[in-house]
Order: sequence, then C-alpha cells, then structure tokens
Amino acid sequence: MNERTNTVNNGVNVEALLDAREALTEAPEAGKFKWRATCTWLNGTHVSSSVEQFYGLGEEQSHRKKFTFDSDHPEIFASEDNGATPIEFVLVGLAGCLTAGIASVAQNREIQLNSVKATLEAGMDIAGILGIDSNVRNGFDGVKVHFEIDADASREDIEALVAQSQKRSAVYDIITNPTNAVVTVN
Amino acid sequence: MNERTNTVNNGVNVEALLDAREALTEAPEAGKFKWRATCTWLNGTHVSSSVEQFYGLGEEQSHRKKFTFDSDHPEIFASEDNGATPIEFVLVGLAGCLTAGIASVAQNREIQLNSVKATLEAGMDIAGILGIDSNVRNGFDGVKVHFEIDADASREDIEALVAQSQKRSAVYDIITNPTNAVVTVN
Repeated sequence: MNERTNTVNNGVNVEALLDAREALTEAPEAGKFKWRATCTWLNGTHVSSSVEQFYGLGEEQSHRKKFTFDSDHPEIFASEDNGATPIEFVLVGLAGCLTAGIASVAQNREIQLNSVKATLEAGMDIAGILGIDSNVRNGFDGVKVHFEIDADASREDIEALVAQSQKRSAVYDIITNPTNAVVTVN
Repeated sequence: MNERTNTVNNGVNVEALLDAREALTEAPEAGKFKWRATCTWLNGTHVSSSVEQFYGLGEEQSHRKKFTFDSDHPEIFASEDNGATPIEFVLVGLAGCLTAGIASVAQNREIQLNSVKATLEAGMDIAGILGIDSNVRNGFDGVKVHFEIDADASREDIEALVAQSQKRSAVYDIITNPTNAVVTVN
C-alpha cells in the first residue's frame, strides 16, 4: 500500500475506520448493532417515522438529533401525497449506502472524487399489492442504479470503487438477499 | 361483505382502490410502475437523495413536490451525522408500508382504527461491512416489528389486519425476498 500522503480528501476519516476494524477484530461483541425506528399512524396512508436511538459498540447510542420522516401514498392511489412513498425510502437508503461506500473506498485507495451522482430506478407491478395476480410479487421486480463519477482515476479504478462499495453495502445486501422479518401486535 | 355504512373512517379511499383494482385487471400494463431516486454526494458519507418523478398508469407521474433526504453515518463511525443512516431509511420504509397497509385493510374491513404505533429493531453485525469476517453478512441479521394498535375490533381481527398488511406489503417483500439489483457506472 502506498504511504498515505494526505493529499486526497473525500471527507472520510479512513484511519478511524481502519482503527475500528482493528478494535472490533479484538472485541467482536462491540460490532453487534441494533438499528431502530418508531412509527405513528396519522391518517389514511400518512404516517410519521423517526430514528434517533440505536445500539452499538456495547452501549446505547444516539444520533445528534432525531430524524423524522413523513411517508404517504401518491395522489394517483387516492392518497394525499404528504411524503415519499414507503418504497421510495428503500431507494433513498440504497443510494446513500452505495454512495457513502464509494467515498469511503475512494479515500482508502487514495482516489480523489470530484463528483458522484446516482440515478436509481426500480420496477414494480402493482398487480401484486392490489391482489390482482398472486403470481406477481409485491416488491420491486428489479433495481437499476447508475453512477456518474468524476474522479482523478482511470475508468477501471472507478469501476473497481463501485464494485467494492457494492460488496460491502448493507442496503445492497438487504435488497438482494432475503432477511427474516417478524411482525407482532400488542 | 357487509353493506358499507360509511361510519368507519380511517382516511383511506378504499372505493378508489377497489376501482383501481378493477381497472387494472382490464388493463394490466397500467399497473407497471417505475420508482426513481437521484442522489448527489456532498462530502464524506453525507449524501442528498431526492424522489419526485415516477412512472405508472401508462405515463410519467410526479409527486406534489420533490422530497429530499440527507443521509450520513453517525459520529461513532467518524462521520458527521448529517442525516439518518442509509440502513435506517429501510426501516422507515418498512414502517410506512406496513402501517399504511393496516389502515387500508382496516378501512376495507370496516374496522375503525384509533391509534397505530410501531417500533422496529434490526440487528446488524458491522464485522460484515468492515470486512472483518466474510461469513458475516453486510445487512440486517433480522428485523422485528411490533405494533400497538387500538381499534374497534377483537384481538383476532386486529391480528388479521396485520397479517393481511404483511401479505400485501411491497417493502416487507423487498426485505424478506431477494431482488436483482444491477449497478453500472458512466
């Protein structure tokens, strides 16, 4: 690995992440996180969800502030469109995860990023959620993510950044692989 | 089915949804949607993502306004915590989808909801994303959703509402089943 020259600055503290990796290798329990959200129904398909507390590094943690999000269905579904559609939040999560990953990997590989833009598109046949055809799934039938990256690197190195980000992306993993989800009620 | 008395009002226009189901059964192409997001890298792990346009009912559609979300990593990951963590957006989407579904199903079954609250928790071992242990997945190792529902209905009917919402939830499907995702770069 090259000696770190500190001339590349993507705003990611890679040294801290490498230190964390070393620390967690010694103390694996600290790597066990719990992410949380709460949700309150407002009216119709309009709900308000918040994230603030989470658990990790062996103790309760908190964001600097509570982040609150309204979600709703659009007007063409006879709703009031008071927020993004729940399914769009999944795309927002995927975009954020892959893009943050690209910045982190670029920093580690000493590649200066100048700009990164992503466009995401996910197909969905609503015959599933409306119960018209039980052979049609409720969720996305596929997701396409396209990056436009301007970086001080070869095309090959930029492609490798994206590939590595995918390989370590939590949200990409959640979308492309099954996860057990248990739903209970009072 | 009971005659609709219009005394139950959860704010969901079920008649419109039933009409849509009938219309889409005749014209299945109209049910093919494309959901979209765009994302711009700001600095470090901080990105800004937006949703506004989507495609459905055979034409381009738009939300009433653009919804924009900052995502970032928390300070304990040596980031600036300028927004929710990407993975938390997945929980926000799941909460919104299941809760909107409960309201819709309750309306269709003529059950008055008084309040619905959900708490969500998802485990994740960051040994995955940090590349410490290749046997640890990057994403959630499981998701728990707990609803507290106050409704004018028996416990059994409330449980059936939740079960039906899960059965028709797009985001629940995305989390619990694999979806193909293709990532490309300029």
